[in-house]
Amino acid sequence: MKLEDTFLYQEIHQQPEAIANLLNTEASAIEKIGAAIRAYGSKNILIAARGTSDNAGRYAQYLLGASNQFLVSLATPSLFSIYQKPPVLKNVIVIGISQSGKSPDIVSVVQEARNQGALTIAITNQPGSDLERAAEYSINLHAGLERSVAATKTYTTELTAIAMLSAAIAQNQAAMVELNQLPGLIQNLINDASSLAISTQRYRYMQHCLVIGRGFHYASAYECSLKLKELTYTKAEPYSSADFLHGPFALLEPGYPVIVFSATGAMLTEMRDFTLKVQQRGAELIIISNDDQMLGMAELAIGLPKDLPEWITPILAIIPMQLFAMYLAHARKIDIDAPRGIKKVTETY
Amino acid sequence: MKLEDTFLYQEIHQQPEAIANLLNTEASAIEKIGAAIRAYGSKNILIAARGTSDNAGRYAQYLLGASNQFLVSLATPSLFSIYQKPPVLKNVIVIGISQSGKSPDIVSVVQEARNQGALTIAITNQPGSDLERAAEYSINLHAGLERSVAATKTYTTELTAIAMLSAAIAQNQAAMVELNQLPGLIQNLINDASSLAISTQRYRYMQHCLVIGRGFHYASAYECSLKLKELTYTKAEPYSSADFLHGPFALLEPGYPVIVFSATGAMLTEMRDFTLKVQQRGAELIIISNDDQMLGMAELAIGLPKDLPEWITPILAIIPMQLFAMYLAHARKIDIDAPRGIKKVTETY
Repeated sequence: MKLEDTFLYQEIHQQPEAIANLLNTEASAIEKIGAAIRAYGSKNILIAARGTSDNAGRYAQYLLGASNQFLVSLATPSLFSIYQKPPVLKNVIVIGISQSGKSPDIVSVVQEARNQGALTIAITNQPGSDLERAAEYSINLHAGLERSVAATKTYTTELTAIAMLSAAIAQNQAAMVELNQLPGLIQNLINDASSLAISTQRYRYMQHCLVIGRGFHYASAYECSLKLKELTYTKAEPYSSADFLHGPFALLEPGYPVIVFSATGAMLTEMRDFTLKVQQRGAELIIISNDDQMLGMAELAIGLPKDLPEWITPILAIIPMQLFAMYLAHARKIDIDAPRGIKKVTETY
Repeated sequence: MKLEDTFLYQEIHQQPEAIANLLNTEASAIEKIGAAIRAYGSKNILIAARGTSDNAGRYAQYLLGASNQFLVSLATPSLFSIYQKPPVLKNVIVIGISQSGKSPDIVSVVQEARNQGALTIAITNQPGSDLERAAEYSINLHAGLERSVAATKTYTTELTAIAMLSAAIAQNQAAMVELNQLPGLIQNLINDASSLAISTQRYRYMQHCLVIGRGFHYASAYECSLKLKELTYTKAEPYSSADFLHGPFALLEPGYPVIVFSATGAMLTEMRDFTLKVQQRGAELIIISNDDQMLGMAELAIGLPKDLPEWITPILAIIPMQLFAMYLAHARKIDIDAPRGIKKVTETY
């Protein structure tokens, strides 16, 4: 099959349109949810999600923390579904995120929370799904049917939905203006990334790598790592730069591939210092950044648009790495739309 | 240097004594903290920790969730230290865990929480450390000086301290009776594990592996993975069985080493089903369990004592894997007390 005919290729390229749909169609529903959250008064959010959607949850931890002063936790679904000893959730805002809206453990968290009187919100690409019906409020991603096993457009629309929710809670019109630039910026990134078809060849036999991001880009590290695992079977492990220094740094040896996400903003100095340490150990650096000094340390430098607030850059930074994973899978002659052992909807309990 | 003369060997073997010290010396202080938590009334806990101590935090998420109905979050320290936009923490119980009590990002979380009026608790092996001074209450691990870079006795004493705190909050005397068995049970486990010196030889050239645990043993998966990374340079990646099915399952190929933690209790059926799936893909299984059916699926079966509640088994299950990592590092002629690139106290911001 030609690469251009795969679901993955098509869905990566549909992202500008999917995000434009979401921005245009769901803004007023999200404003109402923002008002309901302000009225509810709680500053505690619990997010239940798995896989790619859990990575969107990691983004929410930082964005709703830094911009809205919420304490955001990621759920431990087995406390609900297997141990059947859920925590006390009154006065908590519970958000379930799932592309399909079907995974029983995620639905069980939202159901229990609603029974306890929590404010519940579903973020899903499937109106009418179990998850949407379980929650009091819902945000529809409007991404169109996603058929590739590896999620792409539902990840970036999930991040955008979370950013719209953050802006709605804070009644921050300036943030909405920034978000409205996304479809154009993503289209440019996709156009610029065609050279990745060639530059990924160098990594044809890469068996393992580290993926580093901290703060807003902690989510990027996890999501990039997941795409590399499910599409290319590379043993990619995500880390925050701080956690990596607490032990796993021992793994580094000359030539070890390290992928680093870093954008201009409060985290930049930390990431420059970290990347210098890694470079001094002889690692091979793949860097996704809009900072020239960071890009200058890379063997493979992937530029991002400049002059953007740090919080919006995760919605852009993952796009070239979706393409990287796709081209690498293609170079390895892997059936891109049907990776071994997994299917589109995974139901866990 | 002879293996028996390394700090690591000695500190692994000091665990029965360290835990006995903690149980005998700190019980009444922990009872007072339990009473203070009951009086405070909040059901929300935030834990700040890095590395091994963060893995103890994962255990707290499940134990304080299942036994005390607390909603326990793991902190995102960079929101405090780098972005300087901390979440609202009034009415939250904040616990900082650190062997050395020195990491500035962890101390900054506890300081900010105390400034906001939260109830703050330090768990540390260093009385008088920055962390202890920042918190209103503190629990001293009484583990004795830990000099090996890889933490062992501070991990199991951290878990024990958390279990003592859970019992104190619930005024659960039966749980304290269970905990008082630990020194004897751990001594037996260490005595029984001498055969690991030989059985680890099979893994001399293992370059990567997966480590699986869910629920109470999610912490075991993370901590085992960290020991393998820092001591043996094996690319070990921890996963919950549920998350692993959402994508990374694609990595599995015949012969792939998979380490599984599983104890009798509510999670057993889930772990049996998962392990069968992994076995059918031809993985090589190393299983730490007290269930005979689980152990029967293993290439290397590591038995745990039976007839124990599931929640206590993580304090035991890590011990043979500390020894496994030590023997494997020895087989690889690695300087066990000085792994490359890391030191005992890592200060991150």
